[in-house]
Amino acid sequence: MSLSYELLGSDGAARRGRITTAHGTIETPAFMPVGTAGTVKAMLPQSVAETGAEIVLGNTFHLMLRPGAERVAALGGLHKFMNWPGPILTDSGGFQVMSLKELRKLDPDGVTFRSPKDGSQHRLTPESSIEIQRLLDADITMSFDECTSWPAEEPEAAFSMRLSMKWAERGRRAFVKRPGYGLFGIVQGSVFPELRAESAKALIDIGFDGYAVGGLAVGEGQELMFGTLDYTVPMLPANRPRYLMGVGRPGDIVGAVKRGIDMFDCVMPTRSGRTAQGFTRRGEINLRNARHRDDPRPIDEHCACPACTHHSRAYLHHLIRADEILGAMLLTWHNLQYYQDVMRGLRGAIESKTLDTWIASFERDQALGDIPPIQ
Amino acid sequence: MSLSYELLGSDGAARRGRITTAHGTIETPAFMPVGTAGTVKAMLPQSVAETGAEIVLGNTFHLMLRPGAERVAALGGLHKFMNWPGPILTDSGGFQVMSLKELRKLDPDGVTFRSPKDGSQHRLTPESSIEIQRLLDADITMSFDECTSWPAEEPEAAFSMRLSMKWAERGRRAFVKRPGYGLFGIVQGSVFPELRAESAKALIDIGFDGYAVGGLAVGEGQELMFGTLDYTVPMLPANRPRYLMGVGRPGDIVGAVKRGIDMFDCVMPTRSGRTAQGFTRRGEINLRNARHRDDPRPIDEHCACPACTHHSRAYLHHLIRADEILGAMLLTWHNLQYYQDVMRGLRGAIESKTLDTWIASFERDQALGDIPPIQ
Repeated sequence: MSLSYELLGSDGAARRGRITTAHGTIETPAFMPVGTAGTVKAMLPQSVAETGAEIVLGNTFHLMLRPGAERVAALGGLHKFMNWPGPILTDSGGFQVMSLKELRKLDPDGVTFRSPKDGSQHRLTPESSIEIQRLLDADITMSFDECTSWPAEEPEAAFSMRLSMKWAERGRRAFVKRPGYGLFGIVQGSVFPELRAESAKALIDIGFDGYAVGGLAVGEGQELMFGTLDYTVPMLPANRPRYLMGVGRPGDIVGAVKRGIDMFDCVMPTRSGRTAQGFTRRGEINLRNARHRDDPRPIDEHCACPACTHHSRAYLHHLIRADEILGAMLLTWHNLQYYQDVMRGLRGAIESKTLDTWIASFERDQALGDIPPIQ
Repeated sequence: MSLSYELLGSDGAARRGRITTAHGTIETPAFMPVGTAGTVKAMLPQSVAETGAEIVLGNTFHLMLRPGAERVAALGGLHKFMNWPGPILTDSGGFQVMSLKELRKLDPDGVTFRSPKDGSQHRLTPESSIEIQRLLDADITMSFDECTSWPAEEPEAAFSMRLSMKWAERGRRAFVKRPGYGLFGIVQGSVFPELRAESAKALIDIGFDGYAVGGLAVGEGQELMFGTLDYTVPMLPANRPRYLMGVGRPGDIVGAVKRGIDMFDCVMPTRSGRTAQGFTRRGEINLRNARHRDDPRPIDEHCACPACTHHSRAYLHHLIRADEILGAMLLTWHNLQYYQDVMRGLRGAIESKTLDTWIASFERDQALGDIPPIQ
């Protein structure tokens, strides 16, 4: 038995589900904080769990270079290494390797690249990526693919997608089935409906434990992304989880959930937490802005995170101006809390079949803009 | 009523006491983590309290420049600003201003200096330092003094000390007495017994709520520091707390407690936590060292901090090599926990009048050196 997916309810195309893995369950729709190098940056793992996150993402590319997959395996796997006892999804390394540009060389069999850290040479193939993810002990392993760059002409997107489908098949053969562990395939094809259909069919023929939509959130904009989901998601099997890779802003996630996506990951809440950007019910705010300098109010009086329950905007502003680590810690925590609050809201709305009402309220709040300054 | 000091027990010159302030009590001997700019770096204030710390130190110099004492006061004072409900001691700003060298100009009335942040001009006098500390709402205010530089010839040390004594008297007059709040004088005089005696007498004649020993831990070495304490501490009133400023390594603190000191502050545990240096029962270790790369053991299996209860040396080593914020967070926490464990040990040993035995065991452990690598 690989990992399992249970459909608990739905509202239109949106789904309320539960994924059961070797290291626990994930209520979906779910947002996965990104723990690039074995840490969700600036957060204790216990604090990540406190926000409501049930699964985190680890990066094969970063972990294979440092500390090395064999070392992580010898130390008991990534769960033990980073003290995250819950489920972990690892990406395949493909996305990061492709972004190396002149440091990498693609061939039909895989990718050879130089480490940006020390120049050492490495190679990833469909098989070695799967093996590294096994060494890391990922509950959810991702197929090694070539993430088609944006923008791409149709022939280029087709060539890239077909290479990824060959690699997906090789990865499926290399993947060792274990109870509670699963392998996800990744639909490519850029913004071309025929290519997305061909890719989805190829993956379904191979057979995966879950299906990801890749190659989006790469610069195409929300309208094209939603458009692509509109015709791609219905091609995916209803009895398997669906994962939109690298997405996104809260509004992107809400629109994708409405279109039937179950899982998300994005560096935005954590990265923004280190660059003074806060996500709130009333949109995004920049805590570095002088308007917060004397403001005794929290970011959001309804938020349960430590930044909002214990600290003023003025204090956060001060920490950020003073380059204090605590500023990054508190704002990261707030952003992850907000993302998980959105996911909780979405799950509840699907359960009660009130998703459209919930989304209307979400969009109204977002459009309000930040609370006005105190006069 | 200013703050009060209660002597609960003693063992030789060492004292077990309790300071009661407007924001709570402090069991002594006590170590105060340094919260320079309104944050103990890389720590949530709740986590600082979890280590056992009962009082933190804030820096007048940093806070007056950013965010500004008036701003902190308008936001409810430093306790509320940084969410530290317990006692706070603020230094006078003197030590940092003196270290500005060419950016500052000393006159008999105070010091004029330029901000190293933005070049803006500021001035500190005995009166304005006290006023800033009042705005910050410090439970313990420190006299504004000129910290005598090291090394100093006797005439230079005498001139500097006598200026500080004049300033101490002016500060005492400027200090507004409030229940639970106190003002400490600072004994100067470098390493000259006659000057230390003159300084102690001058301060006692003025009358303070506590007495600090200043001008040590500036490069003179442990032997000269202990020697200076040997003759200086007995000159101080027994019914007032005694504070050794800016000290130190664990061994320095232990030796100073034995000589009758009640309070300490030092950036060492926090700064070291950001530079891979760990303090342990068996001495100092550098987590960046390759010997820790594959070590599944915690820093110290007997330590109750999150770094030791949840993480391996290998993981901490990885975080440090990868410049991850979590590395600084965990190691800072460990170091503060170790410092508080030392203070707890010292308090218990004085209570049971077994301090010499405790110190012998402490020194034996420190001399052992780190646990040997796994073969």
